[in-house]
Amino acid sequence: MTTESEEKALRYRRAQSVSKAEEITEQEKKVRKLQLDKPIHTPRDSLFSWSSEFNDFTGLVNWGFLMLSIGGVRLGLENFLKYGLRVNPLEWIIVLTGYNEGDRSQYPSVILIVFSIVPIVLSLLIEKGIAVDLIPNKLGIILQITHLLLMVLLPIAVLHYRGNDFSFVGITSVCMLYLIIFLKLWSYTQTNYWCRLGLKKKYSDTKLRRQSLSAPNWNKLVSAEQEQSKEDLINDTPAAARLTKYPDNLNLKDLVYFMLAPTLCYELNFPRTARIRKRFVIKRVLELFFGINLALALFQQWMIPTITNSVETFTKMDVIRITERLLKLAVPNHLLWLCFFYLTFHSFLNLMGELLQFADRKFYGDWWNANNISVFWSTWNMPVHMWAVRHVYKPITGMGFSKFNAGLVVFAISALFHEYLVSVPLQMFRIWAFLSMMAQPPMAVISRTAEIKLGARWGNLMVWSSLILGQPLAIMMYYHDYAMLHFKPTVEVP
Amino acid sequence: MTTESEEKALRYRRAQSVSKAEEITEQEKKVRKLQLDKPIHTPRDSLFSWSSEFNDFTGLVNWGFLMLSIGGVRLGLENFLKYGLRVNPLEWIIVLTGYNEGDRSQYPSVILIVFSIVPIVLSLLIEKGIAVDLIPNKLGIILQITHLLLMVLLPIAVLHYRGNDFSFVGITSVCMLYLIIFLKLWSYTQTNYWCRLGLKKKYSDTKLRRQSLSAPNWNKLVSAEQEQSKEDLINDTPAAARLTKYPDNLNLKDLVYFMLAPTLCYELNFPRTARIRKRFVIKRVLELFFGINLALALFQQWMIPTITNSVETFTKMDVIRITERLLKLAVPNHLLWLCFFYLTFHSFLNLMGELLQFADRKFYGDWWNANNISVFWSTWNMPVHMWAVRHVYKPITGMGFSKFNAGLVVFAISALFHEYLVSVPLQMFRIWAFLSMMAQPPMAVISRTAEIKLGARWGNLMVWSSLILGQPLAIMMYYHDYAMLHFKPTVEVP
Repeated sequence: MTTESEEKALRYRRAQSVSKAEEITEQEKKVRKLQLDKPIHTPRDSLFSWSSEFNDFTGLVNWGFLMLSIGGVRLGLENFLKYGLRVNPLEWIIVLTGYNEGDRSQYPSVILIVFSIVPIVLSLLIEKGIAVDLIPNKLGIILQITHLLLMVLLPIAVLHYRGNDFSFVGITSVCMLYLIIFLKLWSYTQTNYWCRLGLKKKYSDTKLRRQSLSAPNWNKLVSAEQEQSKEDLINDTPAAARLTKYPDNLNLKDLVYFMLAPTLCYELNFPRTARIRKRFVIKRVLELFFGINLALALFQQWMIPTITNSVETFTKMDVIRITERLLKLAVPNHLLWLCFFYLTFHSFLNLMGELLQFADRKFYGDWWNANNISVFWSTWNMPVHMWAVRHVYKPITGMGFSKFNAGLVVFAISALFHEYLVSVPLQMFRIWAFLSMMAQPPMAVISRTAEIKLGARWGNLMVWSSLILGQPLAIMMYYHDYAMLHFKPTVEVP
Repeated sequence: MTTESEEKALRYRRAQSVSKAEEITEQEKKVRKLQLDKPIHTPRDSLFSWSSEFNDFTGLVNWGFLMLSIGGVRLGLENFLKYGLRVNPLEWIIVLTGYNEGDRSQYPSVILIVFSIVPIVLSLLIEKGIAVDLIPNKLGIILQITHLLLMVLLPIAVLHYRGNDFSFVGITSVCMLYLIIFLKLWSYTQTNYWCRLGLKKKYSDTKLRRQSLSAPNWNKLVSAEQEQSKEDLINDTPAAARLTKYPDNLNLKDLVYFMLAPTLCYELNFPRTARIRKRFVIKRVLELFFGINLALALFQQWMIPTITNSVETFTKMDVIRITERLLKLAVPNHLLWLCFFYLTFHSFLNLMGELLQFADRKFYGDWWNANNISVFWSTWNMPVHMWAVRHVYKPITGMGFSKFNAGLVVFAISALFHEYLVSVPLQMFRIWAFLSMMAQPPMAVISRTAEIKLGARWGNLMVWSSLILGQPLAIMMYYHDYAMLHFKPTVEVP
């Protein structure tokens, strides 16, 4: 093949010869049109030839989505013909309530959920103790960290002794709840600590200012006066008067609001909306109702048979069959994830926000346009992203560590939490969730390179691929191990 | 739900109240930023809320094509696991050459293909006869029409007596060839007829002009002089001198060139290119070689098992199963059609055009962007479209009939040809191909309405749907009947 410049030269020469030829044949054309045989042919190129310079293929986008829909409808019909109707709402109620055939009086998940009030109140009491100087600052912080870590480990301990009383959905909910409380109380403790630090600095600044006023020095005086006017703005304007100040925020009402609010980052004065829009609430409730039913139906009808069928394949380690199963699982898994994303991050968090008149609704960015994996991770889950930046990344860079190291710590903590959410409910300590999270930073580098070298479209395609194919791979690996542990293999391994 | 105007008013009121609230809280915001708790929340909407006015979903196009690719790869693997490798080039050579186990000496398709020279030469001889006044004009035209109709009916007659000696591919090729020759010779005859008509008119005009010159009338003289100058342009310029004039075109070389040229419309002076681009030829040859192999592989591996499996389903007339089969067949059938389209209309016709230095390469328009079915039919197959307009539509409207009626006649003739191409090779006279072509004008009206009422995108989607779903429906109906006739049903009809 020729290089680009050669091709350009060729095109130029061709265009020139065409224009000359055109001049010559101009008259001929005119004459031709007047001939008796009603001529209709004129020299022109086919649209697919590069020389036609045609590039309107907008219809192909419609084609793509139509082919996708046809494939989807056919898969649905095939599934229905193969498995019949498997959707059974009753079964879900049983699973969701942790109802257990053997021992009906036990609802350990419910007890653990109710028990979560204890660490919340304990956290408030410790903060209160520090604020009124009952507990020294350092001891208070050690107490907070210890009791938060104990809280997160509690489900593991309970599970160890009463493992058989838990339903899978029950223990997953407990783990999720305890993790969210951990993140929220961490933010609560750290924010209150910042307030105390700030007040202490302000107190010593004021003292310094007074000293400088008693022994006047003009330069210092001016800067001190500027400080004072800033101070006035913060404290003495009507707007400032309406704001809650530390330690007035240390009360149960404020903490409960934060616990319910759709954010993981505590602050003393959340932005609020003027009113609750009833129509908005109704829409979100309807979305939740129908969306959850759709997701559960998809799960029962499509995911479960596919996963069940794939265990045998994974045992045999046949690469082609595993790939086929993986791709088959990828589609319903991805659709379920999309349902879950919309229901959680749009419907549910917006509903909570509306009911609590919480004004900051940036629960997600436009991750679907993300051109590399870093952008995806910093936009798909804004509450966790904001928490990680405010309470992990910035404190670490503030201590003088590099941004790269801070980023690694964020991913490592995130990886630990993912492992916690998977391993504890499955009662099976593998490190695959941890490893797949730790694989994200190198993948981010690869996708960033793809974006720069090949263009934004390829970066975006890499993000989607890792999302669509990465999850089912992890799910199948965990499910395979789980099935190997809990059920006897029905096939002999050759 | 509210009407549009109500919603607008609501939005306006809301925007007003927001701006007022903003003024009030402007100072508060400033103060908040300076607080000790490092606040990060600001009032903002979620992207999916209409109030955010966010609408950048370009990433979803990538998502669509990725999901499509994943589905495609999985289907391929599933097919391979189920049926193994079915591609067998040897088998195709046997089928294509019409090799017959029972009687090896018979190649009736080849004989019929060679015989097609006879009507071509005959047509030239009749034209020559008319031109030299050996055959009267009217008789000549009757002769031409008769022998052309006889030619098209010849394969049917041969098939009737020697049906078992034909392979399916062989007889299909014969029918296709005879139909193309019919269309080309029709155009040849009609164009030569136009030339004779024109010459006759010119002759009588010249006579009139001479008469008017002998008895001068100034007005007539001026118009006659204008006529004369136009006449000069047509006949006496160097450009005109290079053009072939009737009846000089009536020779074998000219006719053979037309028979090989990638067009169905005859004219005396085709536009020609300056040279044969060798690279262009090589590219088209490679496309043809690999494309045909790909298409045959797709057909053996994907289409045949799917069609075979569907016969039983059609016999049972189970609506859900038929729909599932139809959608399953739609995908490979459509891909094959796309292969066929590209190979025929781009690779093959461009190759012929390049080799013959035929300059008009408009073998197809941008039918993929067609927003209604009429546009599709007038762009996907330009040779047939141009033939139909020049030799059917315009002559009919020229006779004073309405455009609508002329359009109907075009579709009826096209329907007849489709039926011919399907029924003769299958030796099974159903009218489904005819009916599906005759269903196109009403569908064109429906899709045009959809385009106007719902927008261009919906019109385009209708065109694609009819293309993707219409064909497999017809194929399955024909195949079902064919199987019912030739094989014993393996299932009992309940």
